Amino acid sequence: MRVGYPEVIYCEGKTLEQVTEIIRYMLSKNNNILATRATRQMYEAVKELQPNMQYNELARTITYRIKDIEQTDDYIAIVSAGTSDLSVVEEAKETAEILGNKVKVITDVGVAGIHRLFNRLDDIRGANVVIVVAGMEGALSSVVGGLVSAPVIAVPTSVGYGANFNGLSALLTMLNSCASGVSVVNIDNGFGAAYNASIINHMIIGKK
Amino acid sequence: MRVGYPEVIYCEGKTLEQVTEIIRYMLSKNNNILATRATRQMYEAVKELQPNMQYNELARTITYRIKDIEQTDDYIAIVSAGTSDLSVVEEAKETAEILGNKVKVITDVGVAGIHRLFNRLDDIRGANVVIVVAGMEGALSSVVGGLVSAPVIAVPTSVGYGANFNGLSALLTMLNSCASGVSVVNIDNGFGAAYNASIINHMIIGKK
Amino acid sequence: MRVGYPEVIYCEGKTLEQVTEIIRYMLSKNNNILATRATRQMYEAVKELQPNMQYNELARTITYRIKDIEQTDDYIAIVSAGTSDLSVVEEAKETAEILGNKVKVITDVGVAGIHRLFNRLDDIRGANVVIVVAGMEGALSSVVGGLVSAPVIAVPTSVGYGANFNGLSALLTMLNSCASGVSVVNIDNGFGAAYNASIINHMIIGKK
Amino acid sequence: MRVGYPEVIYCEGKTLEQVTEIIRYMLSKNNNILATRATRQMYEAVKELQPNMQYNELARTITYRIKDIEQTDDYIAIVSAGTSDLSVVEEAKETAEILGNKVKVITDVGVAGIHRLFNRLDDIRGANVVIVVAGMEGALSSVVGGLVSAPVIAVPTSVGYGANFNGLSALLTMLNSCASGVSVVNIDNGFGAAYNASIINHMIIGKK
Amino acid sequence: MRVGYPEVIYCEGKTLEQVTEIIRYMLSKNNNILATRATRQMYEAVKELQPNMQYNELARTITYRIKDIEQTDDYIAIVSAGTSDLSVVEEAKETAEILGNKVKVITDVGVAGIHRLFNRLDDIRGANVVIVVAGMEGALSSVVGGLVSAPVIAVPTSVGYGANFNGLSALLTMLNSCASGVSVVNIDNGFGAAYNASIINHMIIGKK
Amino acid sequence: MRVGYPEVIYCEGKTLEQVTEIIRYMLSKNNNILATRATRQMYEAVKELQPNMQYNELARTITYRIKDIEQTDDYIAIVSAGTSDLSVVEEAKETAEILGNKVKVITDVGVAGIHRLFNRLDDIRGANVVIVVAGMEGALSSVVGGLVSAPVIAVPTSVGYGANFNGLSALLTMLNSCASGVSVVNIDNGFGAAYNASIINHMIIGKK
Amino acid sequence: MRVGYPEVIYCEGKTLEQVTEIIRYMLSKNNNILATRATRQMYEAVKELQPNMQYNELARTITYRIKDIEQTDDYIAIVSAGTSDLSVVEEAKETAEILGNKVKVITDVGVAGIHRLFNRLDDIRGANVVIVVAGMEGALSSVVGGLVSAPVIAVPTSVGYGANFNGLSALLTMLNSCASGVSVVNIDNGFGAAYNASIINHMIIGKK
Amino acid sequence: MRVGYPEVIYCEGKTLEQVTEIIRYMLSKNNNILATRATRQMYEAVKELQPNMQYNELARTITYRIKDIEQTDDYIAIVSAGTSDLSVVEEAKETAEILGNKVKVITDVGVAGIHRLFNRLDDIRGANVVIVVAGMEGALSSVVGGLVSAPVIAVPTSVGYGANFNGLSALLTMLNSCASGVSVVNIDNGFGAAYNASIINHMIIGKK
Ligand SMILES: Nc1ncnc2c1ncn2[C@@H]1O[C@H](COP(=O)(O)O)[C@@H](O)[C@H]1O
Ligand SMILES: Nc1ncnc2c1ncn2[C@@H]1O[C@H](COP(=O)(O)O)[C@@H](O)[C@H]1O
Ligand SMILES: Nc1ncnc2c1ncn2[C@@H]1O[C@H](COP(=O)(O)O)[C@@H](O)[C@H]1O
Ligand SMILES: Nc1ncnc2c1ncn2[C@@H]1O[C@H](COP(=O)(O)O)[C@@H](O)[C@H]1O
Ligand SMILES: [Mg+2]
Ligand SMILES: [Mg+2]
Ligand SMILES: [Mg+2]
Ligand SMILES: [Mg+2]
Ligand SMILES: [Mg+2]
Ligand SMILES: [Mg+2]
Ligand SMILES: [Mg+2]
Ligand SMILES: [Mg+2]
Repeated sequence: MRVGYPEVIYCEGKTLEQVTEIIRYMLSKNNNILATRATRQMYEAVKELQPNMQYNELARTITYRIKDIEQTDDYIAIVSAGTSDLSVVEEAKETAEILGNKVKVITDVGVAGIHRLFNRLDDIRGANVVIVVAGMEGALSSVVGGLVSAPVIAVPTSVGYGANFNGLSALLTMLNSCASGVSVVNIDNGFGAAYNASIINHMIIGKK
Repeated sequence: MRVGYPEVIYCEGKTLEQVTEIIRYMLSKNNNILATRATRQMYEAVKELQPNMQYNELARTITYRIKDIEQTDDYIAIVSAGTSDLSVVEEAKETAEILGNKVKVITDVGVAGIHRLFNRLDDIRGANVVIVVAGMEGALSSVVGGLVSAPVIAVPTSVGYGANFNGLSALLTMLNSCASGVSVVNIDNGFGAAYNASIINHMIIGKK
Repeated sequence: MRVGYPEVIYCEGKTLEQVTEIIRYMLSKNNNILATRATRQMYEAVKELQPNMQYNELARTITYRIKDIEQTDDYIAIVSAGTSDLSVVEEAKETAEILGNKVKVITDVGVAGIHRLFNRLDDIRGANVVIVVAGMEGALSSVVGGLVSAPVIAVPTSVGYGANFNGLSALLTMLNSCASGVSVVNIDNGFGAAYNASIINHMIIGKK
Repeated sequence: MRVGYPEVIYCEGKTLEQVTEIIRYMLSKNNNILATRATRQMYEAVKELQPNMQYNELARTITYRIKDIEQTDDYIAIVSAGTSDLSVVEEAKETAEILGNKVKVITDVGVAGIHRLFNRLDDIRGANVVIVVAGMEGALSSVVGGLVSAPVIAVPTSVGYGANFNGLSALLTMLNSCASGVSVVNIDNGFGAAYNASIINHMIIGKK
Repeated sequence: MRVGYPEVIYCEGKTLEQVTEIIRYMLSKNNNILATRATRQMYEAVKELQPNMQYNELARTITYRIKDIEQTDDYIAIVSAGTSDLSVVEEAKETAEILGNKVKVITDVGVAGIHRLFNRLDDIRGANVVIVVAGMEGALSSVVGGLVSAPVIAVPTSVGYGANFNGLSALLTMLNSCASGVSVVNIDNGFGAAYNASIINHMIIGKK
Repeated sequence: MRVGYPEVIYCEGKTLEQVTEIIRYMLSKNNNILATRATRQMYEAVKELQPNMQYNELARTITYRIKDIEQTDDYIAIVSAGTSDLSVVEEAKETAEILGNKVKVITDVGVAGIHRLFNRLDDIRGANVVIVVAGMEGALSSVVGGLVSAPVIAVPTSVGYGANFNGLSALLTMLNSCASGVSVVNIDNGFGAAYNASIINHMIIGKK
Repeated sequence: MRVGYPEVIYCEGKTLEQVTEIIRYMLSKNNNILATRATRQMYEAVKELQPNMQYNELARTITYRIKDIEQTDDYIAIVSAGTSDLSVVEEAKETAEILGNKVKVITDVGVAGIHRLFNRLDDIRGANVVIVVAGMEGALSSVVGGLVSAPVIAVPTSVGYGANFNGLSALLTMLNSCASGVSVVNIDNGFGAAYNASIINHMIIGKK
Repeated sequence: MRVGYPEVIYCEGKTLEQVTEIIRYMLSKNNNILATRATRQMYEAVKELQPNMQYNELARTITYRIKDIEQTDDYIAIVSAGTSDLSVVEEAKETAEILGNKVKVITDVGVAGIHRLFNRLDDIRGANVVIVVAGMEGALSSVVGGLVSAPVIAVPTSVGYGANFNGLSALLTMLNSCASGVSVVNIDNGFGAAYNASIINHMIIGKK
């Protein structure tokens, strides 16, 4: 394991007490910490334990960096269509960074205005791994998959309404474009995508 | 109604006898005829009644032109991703033509190789209405919808496997990109798309 | 693009801050504005920026008209069954109007009392495009599709309960009646239907 | 139980041997017989046992009338949209008749051509119970339900394709129009609808 | 129509203002009134208009009886399994009564304790029509269908959790037992079941 | 493991060659054999290897008994509604017997004719474990679960049509009646039910 | 029935009044009581009736022990993956104990860290029945099923997000591993699993 | 692109003529060829064009190697549970090899017999990328994901029956275990998994 590799806690479905107890224990192990799906209320509670905790409102993450994280030179690109997917983008970014990766975030490049995507193509093609975050318009991963030769990890989001069925639409779209180097993680799972991307990025750089 | 407007019969779920009987009656009315979802066996049977019937194997259509069809100068574009969607493309083309429309077919322009799409952009942008036919990769309608200002009618196809769920994947994708001027017809419904496109095309030209 | 063509923003899933920021930027471009799925709270915030903003409670739209909109003589008909679908009807109406279309709204004409529909047939048949909004009783689009020769754009709504499954029932009904000149947009997508109808209406009138 | 009330056997999922054995036993009880979902092969086999058996190819029913069936004066109307639903219509008709009901069949009255429905309104309104059989266009039951005051029993059929999902579309439509006196049986269940209608018809006539 | 036949309003998805306006209009027509899916807040508002309005909390109905309702001697039985289905039972009861039917309610007779059902068999068998209301344990309609010869109208309820999927489980169960004289209305649609039952009951008695 | 405990092979999705090879190997180990989902063609092939193989056409099982199986005195009851579920009943029976259990099969006791079930109650109540096999009418497990105090293992079958959705209906019904001592295995999984029942039966007898 | 066998009440979907009334009646019968899915508010209400009531916040159970419960020596193991499933674990535990079973709870043994599972294997293998509670990662039941020869009762939980679809994912996984001695109860149905396990445990011990 | 990188054709949904025509064209470009989802009949036809074509019956692939493929030293592991998943395993293997990767296939290591998996752990842990192929028992990817630190690409297969729903069960399981470094491709998409794995493997080795 790399230096600074964090302890991870998934807060959804846990009570305030359970989260506080787990983080108290993690702190005692003197390690970096990443908590996902955390409410602000949870953050307030654990900041009592250790004031250097950080909260990212949009990402709903709590992070704590006690040890230095050496960041890679190569980077992971996180590509997304619109403002509404930003919370998943942020979860992925927080995760990738605390796992020691450099990240470039490229947003507002949905397929309905494809020229904006082309304007950012160099940044996307320069990455070792590309994470595509897309809701309503899950089509983005197919287009990106066709434009880059690096592995693409697609994250469907639950953003949308009606026949979106809470992300099912984007999920199915993404699963059906796998041929061009695209694989898929769970709906809204920014964490999982970044975790995957991090493994691959570190293996490419040679630090596995 | 325009001169030469055809009688239409949908053959799926009908017996050979029912189809023959209906077409015999249509012939007696001295009109053009379009039969969709017709088997070759049905074609053989009705050719007995009238040798000038045409069969399009891929489209599974029987057509009969007794009256002249005046074709419009403006045209409908039918855009599709791949070889596997061709039968729906052909059904749409046969329908649009017998309804008196000029048609341009633009295939092999899937989103995974988006430069091929850009090569054909002039032909697509020149149309009064654009029909987008796409299966597995239903993403095409979002991209086209963003590139043209004409109305786009999207036809999801049942081409694909696994999480495609017989066209459900493409259907949901298309319904979720409606904002940019895209509306949707039933899975594999090349006929319906062309019928819609024809109404719009004729209204634009002024022959309604 | 026509004079007065608005900037559009979709507010669902955006924070109050994001919406305000985007609209501030739009205002700086001196253009008409349409915001859909906006809460009253968002409206209060942006009215601070510009007091001439309008809010339609039922439609959940914010509109701002800085430039004159020349309205067409021809019109779009918006047809619906009942009181419960009115918010989608209103979203479609606000959209169509700010896009420069004349609109006739015809409500309370559900299929369970079909004579009321027949009483309004002249208004419906006079339109260039017909938008049918229907929930629980998605059947309306099939009936209207059979009665008019203009293109019909169907909007399923999520109104209903039980086996309605949040609009799935109406959506499937509408997709299954496409043959008679009906195409479909996403559940509750009044905006998308009006956007489509506007494109077609303007092309027919000759202003494309 | 009324005189001549038949024994009923549902053949789907049974082997040829099982069907023959059951019918042999029924014959020994000297009663009228109705077998549904029977293949022609099954018919050939049981005709060996008793040459007066009748087979309705479309309905897939075997019937045997050893005892007289007194038919009611009042009648059940069976209403359907198109040729493709005829096998369900026929199953319902065979069932209703062998249960001692007079039947009027009114076909080709789909909602897309609603005037044809109005032409037959007297026959429909004259019935004690109305069975509506409709596939792709499940909308028929809503319209009929609004036009008659008798109870309507709706049978969704699996006729259609794509977003029809083997009858799910028509089923959901019908369940969502229950308010106006419509209740629903299983997809393709012509037998069940007729059985229900027969109970009601006989109770109205007073022979329960 | 019978004397005292009420005006009906379905309040779900309507605003407080809409409901009040509609009821004000109904009152002006001097008729009995039934409002379903009404909140207590709606009740408070319309009681201002007319103090004799009644509210049934469990049924969520508002009723108003200005004209006498002649009740039939024959009756409709409403059968249900448990306490949790009572709100649907009550909606059905209020509806049936204001439509002029005598009603017997038989609860707490779920299939898991089938002897309790047998204890009430006489009351169930004495009815002209039987409404079966059942959630989680949709099985009740099959059992009752087998025990009575009157028509059974089954109402699946959304009571349950997990693989109940908001009533889907009970709905499917009920649709699959149609052979024994059972037909089905929408999930939680106590109103629809009672409306159907009322039509049948009145036709049997001879008042159609 | 008990004396005579068999090797098990699941033949679905295996080629003829794969099945033959696996069974040749099993024979070399001198053990009893149970093959499920076996075609007659597979049986013909393996009978070449060892003529004492038995084939149960309905169950689609191949069995081979080289070692004696001591049968328990206590028994497992297998209860089912109708002829159409017999193949699942037979798979369960063959499995339970070769696993060394005594079996009583009680068929034709569907809930629509509940008195037949009561006639067989002693046999059902005498069992250590009760397997309930039911398709279309999945309700049987709820009723049986309420009548016995032994554990009930429910097997939904794919028998049915329409809203049965290949067994989904019965599956959901059974999952929703778990309170009364019912647990569920996969659709059509007669093998799994018997395997479970056998474990429990042997543990009760004391031979675990 | 064993001494001390409790009355059981399922509180979901019942009003506060209904719950209080039922428990008042149960108290009058002088028996032990188990109430599941109870809110704290319900607890406060019934504690008024009888101060010795216990509330388990996580399990959402109210228990009342007036009579002694003799606990078995043999035990039921309840195995689960993580903190988030604890409320189902607790419901199962409360149920099993008030039914007179000794329980061992083994948590934090998810398949993603399978060594932790192996560390607890002796405790799991020592049980007469094993209950496996798992959400997101429904895989646990397959692994445990392969490691123990006792019957396994699997409880899918609704813990998770996205493609978990409220427990559907875990439910399907568990149904597909039935061959190795696993049967399944409804999503989140800790009560049902424990009830089943209790029946089996008592039959094994010989107290049936 | 690497030397010898093949042309790829997906044969499903293409006619014999279309496949032959495409491959004739590919041959003219003097390149290696991989055709997936090919029938034996297609193979017979293209062998006419070029006798050195290879057919893998199980994988349903046609391969043609005109140029040398330099194989990597590092390898991709393909892990699967049982005999029934072999066709997907073979498609993945053929794809990975013609893309220039060394492959180790590790089968018969399903989670129900987890010791077999542990016996092969060294081979699995030695790989740069691990492909997990699993049907009925989709649980395998969760377990493997927890045991290795390399990226895992999971392929759900449609093997199974009943509540497997053609691979949906395995698909959902896999999507729900993404956290531990697992990403997912479409059901039965051995090609897509291998294509992804190949990209990653080559990037790690440094040949991108
Ligand atoms: N947002 C997330 N979505 C899915 N899995 C997550 C997420 N965040 C963390 N995890 C996983 O959950 C594990 C911690 O789970 P727990 O022990 O329940 O807190 C981590 O090791 C991750 O594998
Ligand atoms: N609970 C209910 N569920 C379904 N439909 C209802 C219900 N209550 C009333 N209705 C129907 O709704 C109609 C009134 O609808 P509306 O005009 O929207 O108030 C009535 O005539 C009934 O047919
Ligand atoms: N009909 C069946 N349904 C489900 N699982 C089965 C069935 N028959 C056998 N099995 C299981 O499949 C295993 C053998 O699988 P295999 O090695 O693929 O032949 C047996 O040990 C059983 O657990
Ligand atoms: N088994 C497969 N499943 C999914 N996609 C595939 C498969 N085999 C090939 N492909 C993709 O299909 C493309 C060729 O499609 P086509 O041009 O229709 O033959 C290839 O470039 C691959 O991306
Ligand atoms: Mg790529
Ligand atoms: Mg556009
Ligand atoms: Mg029309
Ligand atoms: Mg009516
Ligand atoms: Mg009956
Ligand atoms: Mg019991
Ligand atoms: Mg086991
Ligand atoms: Mg891992």
